[in-house]
Amino acid sequence: MKSDIPVTSLQRLPVYLNYLKSLDSDGFISSGSIARALGMGEVLVRKDLAFTSAQGRTRVGYSRTELIAALEDYLGCNDKKKAVIFGAGEVGKALMSYGGFSNYGIEIVAAFDNDSAKVGTYVGGKPVFDLEEASQKLAELAPRLAVICVPASAAQTVADTLVDCGINKILNFAPVLLHVKEGCVVRNIDVAANLAILSSMI
Amino acid sequence: MKSDIPVTSLQRLPVYLNYLKSLDSDGFISSGSIARALGMGEVLVRKDLAFTSAQGRTRVGYSRTELIAALEDYLGCNDKKKAVIFGAGEVGKALMSYGGFSNYGIEIVAAFDNDSAKVGTYVGGKPVFDLEEASQKLAELAPRLAVICVPASAAQTVADTLVDCGINKILNFAPVLLHVKEGCVVRNIDVAANLAILSSMI
Repeated sequence: MKSDIPVTSLQRLPVYLNYLKSLDSDGFISSGSIARALGMGEVLVRKDLAFTSAQGRTRVGYSRTELIAALEDYLGCNDKKKAVIFGAGEVGKALMSYGGFSNYGIEIVAAFDNDSAKVGTYVGGKPVFDLEEASQKLAELAPRLAVICVPASAAQTVADTLVDCGINKILNFAPVLLHVKEGCVVRNIDVAANLAILSSMI
Repeated sequence: MKSDIPVTSLQRLPVYLNYLKSLDSDGFISSGSIARALGMGEVLVRKDLAFTSAQGRTRVGYSRTELIAALEDYLGCNDKKKAVIFGAGEVGKALMSYGGFSNYGIEIVAAFDNDSAKVGTYVGGKPVFDLEEASQKLAELAPRLAVICVPASAAQTVADTLVDCGINKILNFAPVLLHVKEGCVVRNIDVAANLAILSSMI
């Protein structure tokens, strides 16, 4: 079922979840009021939510708690997933200290870096291991996700290591296009590109 | 013209640009080979590139240098734009030190924070000003873009200040839905949500 959802719909599910969580009141909420609050079309909202197990009722809408539970279930928030971070620079350290991952069932378990001053330290309670030990540590930790925060020049090498170690879901902060084999997914967060897109809008 | 482009197409333009820049060879490149390299459909690539001024030639493709120039022109890479950062924590500092913004014509000119230990310091050569002085400094600096990297609880207040000061393009790292008036655009970078999306894929 999950493979049927368009990525654009999948990307909106956390937006609905955050919005529903931000509401104080319980009770029922209609797709129309969700759409108005988020500045989206009502049909789109209904189509997106139909991918989850939530059942809307005519003229009443969705139970807020049921809809939150359905979204959390769909996004795997209750399914614990380990993630590792490559590159313990500013961005890597920020992610290690960030508490919001647990909302999605994600636990950052460790980081890797090649800077001997960082190796052996702890950030946000998580250890920084030597990049050289990556293969061995990845086999021990068995994470499902990895985040690449190394400089652009080192990102492909790190991606190759990850794929060799069987990690096929990579979030990439390095402003470079990573080549991975079929069956692997890379999502890119290029901050500069996002700012450029923003400045081209309106 | 820019208002006609779908956001999803706009989001792909930096991907094409990064890919074209990563190639060593000059000469011509077809939409088919771009599509294959990026794992996308050829029709989609052609449609996206048609929003720019680049002209592809039958059976030859696009001149790589012309296509790069057209993409850079469309994304405003040659049009200097000032940006400010709110919140000089780990993420904020990483952005202040990051060199990649200039590729898109974006110059980070300052950051704002409410921590007196940070106010008056420089990161990546850029000053950290007191959050209390934001209105006055924003009037002086006249930035076109702002990046919010403050904690979720403070993000809406910062967004209100920005909108009051006439800044209508905001990149938001705080994991919260910001409410802004019509005519303002907010793009969200929710790292945890991105990891959750990734883990729901395949």
